[in-house]
Amino acid sequence: MDDSIRYLLDLAILLFAAKLFGVAGKKIGIPEVVGEILAGLVVGSAVFGFVKESDFLSKMSEIGVIMLMFEAGLGTNLQELKKSGLKATLIACMGVLVPIALGTLLFMSFYGFDVPGSERFNRGLFIGTIMSATSVSITVAALKELGKLNDRVGTTIVSAAIIDDVIGIIVLTIVTGLSGSAASENVGNVLLKVVLFFAGAIGTGFLVYKGMAWLDRRYSHQRRIPIISLCYCFALAYLAETYFGIADITGAYVAGVVLCNLADRDYIEKRIDISSYMIFAPIFFAGIGLKVSFGAMDTKLIFFSICFVLVALIGKVVGCGGCARLLGFNGKDSLRIGAGMMTRGEVALITAQKGLGVGLLTADFFTAVILLILVSSVITPVILKKLYSGKDPEPQAASGVSGAGQTG
Amino acid sequence: MDDSIRYLLDLAILLFAAKLFGVAGKKIGIPEVVGEILAGLVVGSAVFGFVKESDFLSKMSEIGVIMLMFEAGLGTNLQELKKSGLKATLIACMGVLVPIALGTLLFMSFYGFDVPGSERFNRGLFIGTIMSATSVSITVAALKELGKLNDRVGTTIVSAAIIDDVIGIIVLTIVTGLSGSAASENVGNVLLKVVLFFAGAIGTGFLVYKGMAWLDRRYSHQRRIPIISLCYCFALAYLAETYFGIADITGAYVAGVVLCNLADRDYIEKRIDISSYMIFAPIFFAGIGLKVSFGAMDTKLIFFSICFVLVALIGKVVGCGGCARLLGFNGKDSLRIGAGMMTRGEVALITAQKGLGVGLLTADFFTAVILLILVSSVITPVILKKLYSGKDPEPQAASGVSGAGQTG
Repeated sequence: MDDSIRYLLDLAILLFAAKLFGVAGKKIGIPEVVGEILAGLVVGSAVFGFVKESDFLSKMSEIGVIMLMFEAGLGTNLQELKKSGLKATLIACMGVLVPIALGTLLFMSFYGFDVPGSERFNRGLFIGTIMSATSVSITVAALKELGKLNDRVGTTIVSAAIIDDVIGIIVLTIVTGLSGSAASENVGNVLLKVVLFFAGAIGTGFLVYKGMAWLDRRYSHQRRIPIISLCYCFALAYLAETYFGIADITGAYVAGVVLCNLADRDYIEKRIDISSYMIFAPIFFAGIGLKVSFGAMDTKLIFFSICFVLVALIGKVVGCGGCARLLGFNGKDSLRIGAGMMTRGEVALITAQKGLGVGLLTADFFTAVILLILVSSVITPVILKKLYSGKDPEPQAASGVSGAGQTG
Repeated sequence: MDDSIRYLLDLAILLFAAKLFGVAGKKIGIPEVVGEILAGLVVGSAVFGFVKESDFLSKMSEIGVIMLMFEAGLGTNLQELKKSGLKATLIACMGVLVPIALGTLLFMSFYGFDVPGSERFNRGLFIGTIMSATSVSITVAALKELGKLNDRVGTTIVSAAIIDDVIGIIVLTIVTGLSGSAASENVGNVLLKVVLFFAGAIGTGFLVYKGMAWLDRRYSHQRRIPIISLCYCFALAYLAETYFGIADITGAYVAGVVLCNLADRDYIEKRIDISSYMIFAPIFFAGIGLKVSFGAMDTKLIFFSICFVLVALIGKVVGCGGCARLLGFNGKDSLRIGAGMMTRGEVALITAQKGLGVGLLTADFFTAVILLILVSSVITPVILKKLYSGKDPEPQAASGVSGAGQTG
């Protein structure tokens, strides 16, 4: 028996399970993406072990999240984005600072306090840094399901998450720099690369937009329009990550923003959406569940992991939600922003990986990171759905957040 | 610089080049698929070397050809299929026998004649066997482009190619069995597996169809219908190849045929079609060109390769076209059937690989096989387009083929 086409069976099982759990989830009132994540958990090594992670599946799921972010970019309202720009930047900053502070405190309250500059303090700082990276893809999917992706709150969340990604890179560079390891990079270099990427993407983006608009006028509603758009998205995602150290999904989002005013925008989005929901997106969501396996842990680590997850979630709600409230968003919208920024994803894992490389983290903490990704991915859509359902009374939510805002 | 997401750039380059060459090809009158194949040749190691073959790309292109065959199955007219069944079987048989005979003769006229049973004869027989495997995917794409996939001739070609695949497995088993190697399989076993696959696929297919029809009545035009259909396609493709030794694309085609009478058939086909043309299909076609690299060859081998390609092409036209003519198809339709069966693909490569394993083939002959795949993939769509354009006068084509029929 030759098992070289095993990936076909993996795809069949994952797509089927994701659809089944997604639909079942919707029936009992939880968002479809949560069902899809749980599907991965169930067919993966955490429960039945039908499907194992593979290089092919991780590439397929990366394409899935890239398509998702490209769609989010395509759906952008440029006016809203400009308006939300400054506020989103402040929200992103607070969403990085508060978790870092809380994460450092958490680590030291478990493993002993120490002065800034000490190794223990730096390790705490790194735990905080892991908490700081929002991964907005799950939130994007949840908001899309609710039809709230492109309003003021949705745009603020997505742009704050993009800015968060950039701040995250800079913070990571600074913190790993503290370790004094050779693997750490120069902060000036990193800043330069960030500036170069956005300057380059906007500069060439203007030309790309002009070219695509010309093509679109001549060949409106022809296949070449969505296909070339997708090529641009893949290329920018690749360039961002490979040459500028910026996440590929940020590149994909920027590509979407560049093309968001094309006449054929909806035509493109429809085709990306179908490609995405037929294969790539379910593989991405189920892939999150697939990553989980429950290894052996000692009691202290289990307790630390639970606290780590709670602090990471609260840190974002307090930091981002509180900042949004101070910036004039109403209570409910501030909570929505805070909750929307709670999701963590592969960026947290990559950060943890870097910490391992420079000796600021030990491998035991990985389970905590994976737990955070899983829990935040599962509860964020549920909470967002609740916050948008209008069932909970406005004043209560508002007071809850303004309180949180004061704490932050 | 980290190049772990190189596959994104590969996808961007391949999709862009495929679209560019496909559109340019169409402008100068050659079918889009030919342009896409040439695009792979140009960006691949044969010319510029921008993109290298990779495991990921070959899996993506496999999914592309599976989707293509699934669509062909979905588009099947069951009445036509039943009507064409017997004729297609006879055409397939002649399309296997004639190339085997001609291939054996070709080999022996280059490398010396010998009696049946001798090693040289067996080697010749194996060269013929390589020629016998039609790969209908390019023809399917070309006929789809021409809008002629589901008429009588199109259905005959596709079903003959499917039957050809089955006969090919049996012949391959017999011929490798002649080598006396341990790698050869028992013919009875192979026959049993073929029978079991089709019996099983038809039996379970009936249940699958009933289940899907029920789902389709309840959830018409919902995403779950095309997604579950695709899962079924992937699963059957996997089962066919892994457990029954039948090509995955045959499994995909059968899955399509099982679902071809669903009320939502067009809804499913549209979504598979979009997923396919946005990414997978161009990667498949460009991937054919990507495989080509012009290595060092001696004069005799070059000359043999050219003759090998010519004989392989003529063998199918004579065998299939001639048989079709004898079965009552008119001259032009017979030529179309003969030309449609000319395409060879990965099955020929897999066959050659098996020959290498049992010692019936040396590695030098691989270039000839790749040349056959490339030439047949490029010229078949061009010839089919010509044969359907109605420019060449009917009587001439008819006399050409009936002559060929007499030769075969």
